[in-house]
Amino acid sequence: PKVVMKKVLCICKLSKEIAQDDPRKVIHSLKVGLAISLVSLFYYYQPLYENFGLSAMWAVMTVVVVFEYTVGATLGKGLNRTMATLAAGALGVGAHYLASLSGETGEPILIGFFVFLQAAIASFIRFFPKVKTRYDYGMLIFILTFSLISVSGFRDDEVVKMAHKRLTTIFLGGSACVMISIFVCPVWAGEELHYSIAQKLQTLGDFLEAFVDEYFKTTKEEESKDKMSYLEGYKSILNAKSNEESLANFARWEPGHGKFKFRHPWSQYLKIGALSRQCAYRMEALKEQLNSDIKGSAEIHSTIQELCTEMCFESSLALKQLSLSIKTMTKKSSHDTHIANSKAAVKILNSLLQSSLWKETDLLSVIPVVTVASLLIDVVDCTEKIADSVNV
Amino acid sequence: PKVVMKKVLCICKLSKEIAQDDPRKVIHSLKVGLAISLVSLFYYYQPLYENFGLSAMWAVMTVVVVFEYTVGATLGKGLNRTMATLAAGALGVGAHYLASLSGETGEPILIGFFVFLQAAIASFIRFFPKVKTRYDYGMLIFILTFSLISVSGFRDDEVVKMAHKRLTTIFLGGSACVMISIFVCPVWAGEELHYSIAQKLQTLGDFLEAFVDEYFKTTKEEESKDKMSYLEGYKSILNAKSNEESLANFARWEPGHGKFKFRHPWSQYLKIGALSRQCAYRMEALKEQLNSDIKGSAEIHSTIQELCTEMCFESSLALKQLSLSIKTMTKKSSHDTHIANSKAAVKILNSLLQSSLWKETDLLSVIPVVTVASLLIDVVDCTEKIADSVNV
Repeated sequence: PKVVMKKVLCICKLSKEIAQDDPRKVIHSLKVGLAISLVSLFYYYQPLYENFGLSAMWAVMTVVVVFEYTVGATLGKGLNRTMATLAAGALGVGAHYLASLSGETGEPILIGFFVFLQAAIASFIRFFPKVKTRYDYGMLIFILTFSLISVSGFRDDEVVKMAHKRLTTIFLGGSACVMISIFVCPVWAGEELHYSIAQKLQTLGDFLEAFVDEYFKTTKEEESKDKMSYLEGYKSILNAKSNEESLANFARWEPGHGKFKFRHPWSQYLKIGALSRQCAYRMEALKEQLNSDIKGSAEIHSTIQELCTEMCFESSLALKQLSLSIKTMTKKSSHDTHIANSKAAVKILNSLLQSSLWKETDLLSVIPVVTVASLLIDVVDCTEKIADSVNV
Repeated sequence: PKVVMKKVLCICKLSKEIAQDDPRKVIHSLKVGLAISLVSLFYYYQPLYENFGLSAMWAVMTVVVVFEYTVGATLGKGLNRTMATLAAGALGVGAHYLASLSGETGEPILIGFFVFLQAAIASFIRFFPKVKTRYDYGMLIFILTFSLISVSGFRDDEVVKMAHKRLTTIFLGGSACVMISIFVCPVWAGEELHYSIAQKLQTLGDFLEAFVDEYFKTTKEEESKDKMSYLEGYKSILNAKSNEESLANFARWEPGHGKFKFRHPWSQYLKIGALSRQCAYRMEALKEQLNSDIKGSAEIHSTIQELCTEMCFESSLALKQLSLSIKTMTKKSSHDTHIANSKAAVKILNSLLQSSLWKETDLLSVIPVVTVASLLIDVVDCTEKIADSVNV
């Protein structure tokens, strides 16, 4: 019993964390409950029950299966389901009719053949990359509907009636989903993508600031929690590709909303995301340098400290400005001066490295510092590229 | 019509490419066709049709929805579906009974409340990370079955009969899927993961060899296609995390097969995968150096050429040995000597960098070479870590 109590407490804590972390998840759960109870009650009442019969259960099924967290995913699934049911229904009725022409013995053979053929072809089409990303669910429903209709064993007129009923109920369930997901506290995939990209640039900026602070600090002070989290932030960017791609896919299904038009250039966000990963790879290497034992001599540190600090702060400011201008969707040019400043610092740093100043010291104590400097120069370069693609 | 012809030709070409790239995808499509036609015919014949009635269509649905590319995914979905139907069926019958106790007016209200409650709670549980990775489909089916049963409007004995039928047909469809996916040319997720990780180490080794060749080449010869593809190979590793994780998840559902036992340490593969990504991040930086215009003086190149070549070739050999020992699942220690050799080279390189040899030249021409050298040292370090986790 004690173990059970502990487990229950643990689950409660986890739930609380998830709920506090993103209250929209709680709202989503309530929305699902609402949609299903609405459709269920609709189905429960006898008059409707008699009209739709068992087909009405397809409405409940549609709601359960189609309702997703974001509007785009829900719309995509709903449209896929409706279109696939329509197409497969038409083809299924045709196949059923063809098979019934061939007489009692030929019918099951022909039907088996048709079902086999369409299932194999549709399964193969699901491997096409473009189909996989956008129409995977539709292909699944196509196979399902075609198989169900062509083997239903009903007479032709019954099949048409059944197909009609199924379509109506699926349409009913699907539109209930879409309505609730759009009009009750909607979660737009496009907006998610938008803010997550803006947040990523902010994270990169925070890292640079925290890094330069940590690298050049002279006293061994306690590290604050905030700074540690800034220094770890880039890790969430490293593997964000698949998440960004699915959000962009969902976003393509969404109608215009708020600041976003229907054909918002979502692929541009993917480009900025890819560049921010490039930047995060460098930060991974910078972080490694922070943890390594060989730090180079203090003398050399102090020589480049000012320039590196300048580069980092200016790039960081530029990234934060870019993040802000994405968030507010305004074209600001204030980041241009910051980028110009950091590029000027890069130039001075390069000539400083070229100067004779270094000849006296031994190379091994210079290497870590030079590595950090060249990584930072790369980061400045990345920042410029990001600025270019934000301003497109 | 010409545009259509072009499109059709394009699709044919794409299909051929996919089929040649992985013939198992064609086999999978045929397997899906086989499974669905078998279950469809089973359902089409009258004697069975009378026994199972409309519930038999659940068998077709189960096959369509559960059949996945790998055995692990199919088993996972099948088990999720069966267990969730059982659990939700029991609870649904209970809820239905409770609601029917409260009389004509209370019944719809209570049923609506129950459906709302379970849908909201189950939707929220789907956000738990652990549930999301392994039991997401089960939760979906739980909501579906519970809603369908509790709103079915049948009398109690009918509900039990219906639940029994549904379970039987789902079990029938699910076991047909599992049988066909296990016994007809199976695609094991575990094996996929195993070979993809081995392939990744091979790719890393190929990169190192091609890199050192390219970096120190003196003549401007044509680059062969092979070498270019070796130099690009690491890119497929950078974003492989989500794919590896889902394969490892599927693999956990699979029974023992071939060289793999039931509780094969799949998470170890994820560790090796993470380390190989660490290595690939360095290679991204190395590739950048290959493309940059500032290459450093030829003199310095020739000084470190021998040592870097030694480091790269030895690390490359070690990685390829590790790849082979994963593939064949044998513990070889031959990679140990290669790693020891490359570490010895690192040591000599470090002392060479420390020597006075460099004082004369200016620092700017040294920087790119030093950057490459320190990246290669990092790679050697990574290789050692990979070797450690392969040998666990």
